[in-house]
Amino acid sequence: MKIYTRGGDQGKTSVIGGRRFKHDLRIHAYGALDEVNSFIGQARVICERSELDVLKPQLLTIQHELFDCGSDLATVKEDAVLKVQPAMIEQLEAWIDAYTEKSPQLERFILPGGSELAASLHVCRTETRRAERAIVELKQEEPIHEPVLQYVNRLSDYFFAAARFVNHSLNVSDVEYERSAIVFKE
Amino acid sequence: MKIYTRGGDQGKTSVIGGRRFKHDLRIHAYGALDEVNSFIGQARVICERSELDVLKPQLLTIQHELFDCGSDLATVKEDAVLKVQPAMIEQLEAWIDAYTEKSPQLERFILPGGSELAASLHVCRTETRRAERAIVELKQEEPIHEPVLQYVNRLSDYFFAAARFVNHSLNVSDVEYERSAIVFKE
Amino acid sequence: MKIYTRGGDQGKTSVIGGRRFKHDLRIHAYGALDEVNSFIGQARVICERSELDVLKPQLLTIQHELFDCGSDLATVKEDAVLKVQPAMIEQLEAWIDAYTEKSPQLERFILPGGSELAASLHVCRTETRRAERAIVELKQEEPIHEPVLQYVNRLSDYFFAAARFVNHSLNVSDVEYERSAIVFKE
Ligand code: B12
Ligand code: B12
Ligand code: B12
Ligand SMILES: C[C@H]1O[C@@H](n2cnc3c(N)ncnc32)[C@H](O)[C@@H]1O
Ligand SMILES: C[C@H]1O[C@@H](n2cnc3c(N)ncnc32)[C@H](O)[C@@H]1O
Ligand SMILES: C[C@H]1O[C@@H](n2cnc3c(N)ncnc32)[C@H](O)[C@@H]1O
Ligand SMILES: [Mg+2]
Ligand SMILES: [Mg+2]
Ligand SMILES: [Mg+2]
Repeated sequence: MKIYTRGGDQGKTSVIGGRRFKHDLRIHAYGALDEVNSFIGQARVICERSELDVLKPQLLTIQHELFDCGSDLATVKEDAVLKVQPAMIEQLEAWIDAYTEKSPQLERFILPGGSELAASLHVCRTETRRAERAIVELKQEEPIHEPVLQYVNRLSDYFFAAARFVNHSLNVSDVEYERSAIVFKE
Repeated sequence: MKIYTRGGDQGKTSVIGGRRFKHDLRIHAYGALDEVNSFIGQARVICERSELDVLKPQLLTIQHELFDCGSDLATVKEDAVLKVQPAMIEQLEAWIDAYTEKSPQLERFILPGGSELAASLHVCRTETRRAERAIVELKQEEPIHEPVLQYVNRLSDYFFAAARFVNHSLNVSDVEYERSAIVFKE
Repeated sequence: MKIYTRGGDQGKTSVIGGRRFKHDLRIHAYGALDEVNSFIGQARVICERSELDVLKPQLLTIQHELFDCGSDLATVKEDAVLKVQPAMIEQLEAWIDAYTEKSPQLERFILPGGSELAASLHVCRTETRRAERAIVELKQEEPIHEPVLQYVNRLSDYFFAAARFVNHSLNVSDVEYERSAIVFKE
């Protein structure tokens, strides 16, 4: 089997149910999710070397679910069965709540970094936000499966909460942005 | 010698044979290749710590060749001698074939990750695909040296094949995407 | 406190003094700086494991200052007090000069990589250049606080100079791009 088909050399490629330019907003959107997924791959490797057992199965689940997101975005045929469900978003929210509860109170922005794992999760966070921008841009032009956008929106908050929890668990203090106003309120 | 010239503070910069805005599609395209090259720099560091001797010289060659790609894309003057040649693409294909042959049969999508080196190669893969999208977008607007696009297209397949080979060699199983159809076919 | 507000699920979000689409050029620009900041978080972690004491406080300062850049770009209300000042740019230039002086003479392009820390700084360099492209694009459409662009322009040169200094200090030779012309001149 050859994975290279030379079919993409002219700049077009296949989606599920059609054919598009590679710089199409749709391809850009699920390509960005593939980027996020590869950064999570790195976080997962670091996680496996740590003792933070709670995180690893979550990262694996998220990697599977980002494929779900990607395949929903790659689908342009009518009547397709789509994969992203509200329960997946609720699961992310429950994980966020659990991490937030176990982390110190937060008032100001914090600098990305601290432990190796938290630094890697901050990269996942910002890459996820870039993917979110791409999906929002796509949504202005073409219909998308809305739960995908919600999932990706919540996912960057998940990475933020997880990074804070990881640093706290490893006894690494997050450094506050020194000119931050009090930005986190409820 | 000062590397900062302050010349770019107004947003314009030089290409080989002209002057452009920094957000020009052309600058964006070779800037994206510079990004890929920096991620390969990280993969090369990890590779040097491993025992996978076959990969390291390939990564070095690819770094040189991405500069070739970049300088071809940076060139807008007539009658320039361009650097990317079909033989470079054939070389990538030969490397892909060799890795594919030595890796387990593939039917379904796999999650990026596994070993540290494979995780890094998956990042290279997805960043290369982002660069490819930028080059295809440029090609809609202006002429490009076509072999550059073919090279970059094949390069992401190279990283995929290399990542699979690396995990296999290190006895790390790739995790299949659990809701994947059978997507890799003859 | 819940960090997820569900307010962004329709694709709009708040800036300082207004509300915008998430794929707005302004959000894209400070989002890209947030990406850069997260990669610096990784460089800082590697730096802390090394003996290069000069770099760590600089990276911390830069992380704070990238928040300054981001909040200036996020501000759209009139009469706001902005944070980025010329002295911050002069400081970057002084650091660049000091690193350049302590590094070997440079004539040709070098491949990103070498030591783990330098490889990470090259990633910071290329991501900073992507952010610069986004800011230049924004500047074509809307007014920006000009020192932000100058800061970000100089920042990528800082990462280049720092990466060279780091490899030199660690006795790792930078590999020259083998088909490079003499590109660095007075
Ligand atoms: C979407 C997509 C991606 C997305 C995937 C995921 C995501 N969800 O985000 C992304 C961008 C990540 C991706 C990446 C890659 N992809 Co891709 N991808 C596709 C695409 C467009 C759709 C695949 C898919 O999900 N199909 C969904 C299923 C449901 O559709 P289907 O296969 O048509 O199946 C239907 C029927 O055929 C039937 N069916 C399917 N299988 C079977 C089996 C049996 C026995 C039966 C009876 C019926 C049946 O049931 C389905 C019902 O609708 C295909 C091209 C295409 N149009 O198929 C390429 C494709 C699978 N990708 C390809 C490649 C090469 C890759 C990459 C290696 C590229 C790279 N260098 O990075 C990576 C690998 C990533 C990884 N980690 O494994 C190649 C594979 C070439 C080959 N030799 O087989 C394809 C075929 C494109 C191509 N022609 O070049 N990809
Ligand atoms: C393309 C380019 C890049 C690309 C490079 C590669 C690629 N292939 O993708 C990218 C985007 C990666 C890049 C990055 C950087 N670049 Co650059 N780059 C250029 C650019 C536009 C062209 C360089 C080139 O390849 N020229 C090709 C050769 C063939 O052209 P040439 O130099 O004009 O040479 C011709 C003649 O002059 C003659 N010639 C050349 N040398 C000699 C010598 C002799 C003795 C003789 C007789 C004739 C001769 O022969 C050539 C025939 O055509 C130049 C600006 C420019 N227009 O020159 C900046 C330039 C070289 N870059 C510069 C800088 C600062 C950088 C970065 C440090 C920026 C950063 N912060 O990241 C990095 C360094 C990257 C690295 N890893 O080393 C500066 C250097 C400033 C200085 N003090 O010298 C320049 C001059 C731009 C500028 N004014 O700011 N760059
Ligand atoms: C810009 C911005 C960012 C930028 C920040 C930085 C930068 N400089 O680049 C970026 C993109 C990086 C960012 C990231 C995040 N952000 Co943000 N961000 C904002 C935004 C738009 C402005 C914050 C700011 O700097 N305000 C500047 C100050 C000066 O303005 P102000 O707070 O209105 O304060 C004025 C007055 O209210 C008063 N004041 C303020 N505090 C106090 C206190 C007292 C006692 C008094 C008397 C007066 C007073 O004084 C100020 C004078 O003008 C806010 C939304 C908003 N409009 O406020 C969200 C916001 C703070 N972010 C939020 C979130 C969730 C995040 C992220 C976690 C998202 C993520 N998943 O990645 C990350 C965290 C990053 C980190 N490392 O900590 C949420 C927080 C939700 C909550 N529960 O509080 C907000 C409120 C947006 C929202 N509604 O969702 N963010
Ligand atoms: C926390 C702040 O980050 C900005 N914001 C919201 N979503 C994104 C995104 N996908 N990318 C970058 N910035 C974003 C908004 O300004 C929000 O208020
Ligand atoms: C494997 C699948 O990935 C998509 N595809 C092809 N090229 C790119 C790219 N540069 N970036 C993102 N996605 C791409 C197509 O949908 C292809 O079928
Ligand atoms: C060194 C060379 O890099 C290009 N250049 C200048 N600024 C950027 C940027 N932000 N991103 C990518 N490339 C850039 C110009 O062509 C310059 O001459
Ligand atoms: Mg292909
Ligand atoms: Mg410059
Ligand atoms: Mg939110």
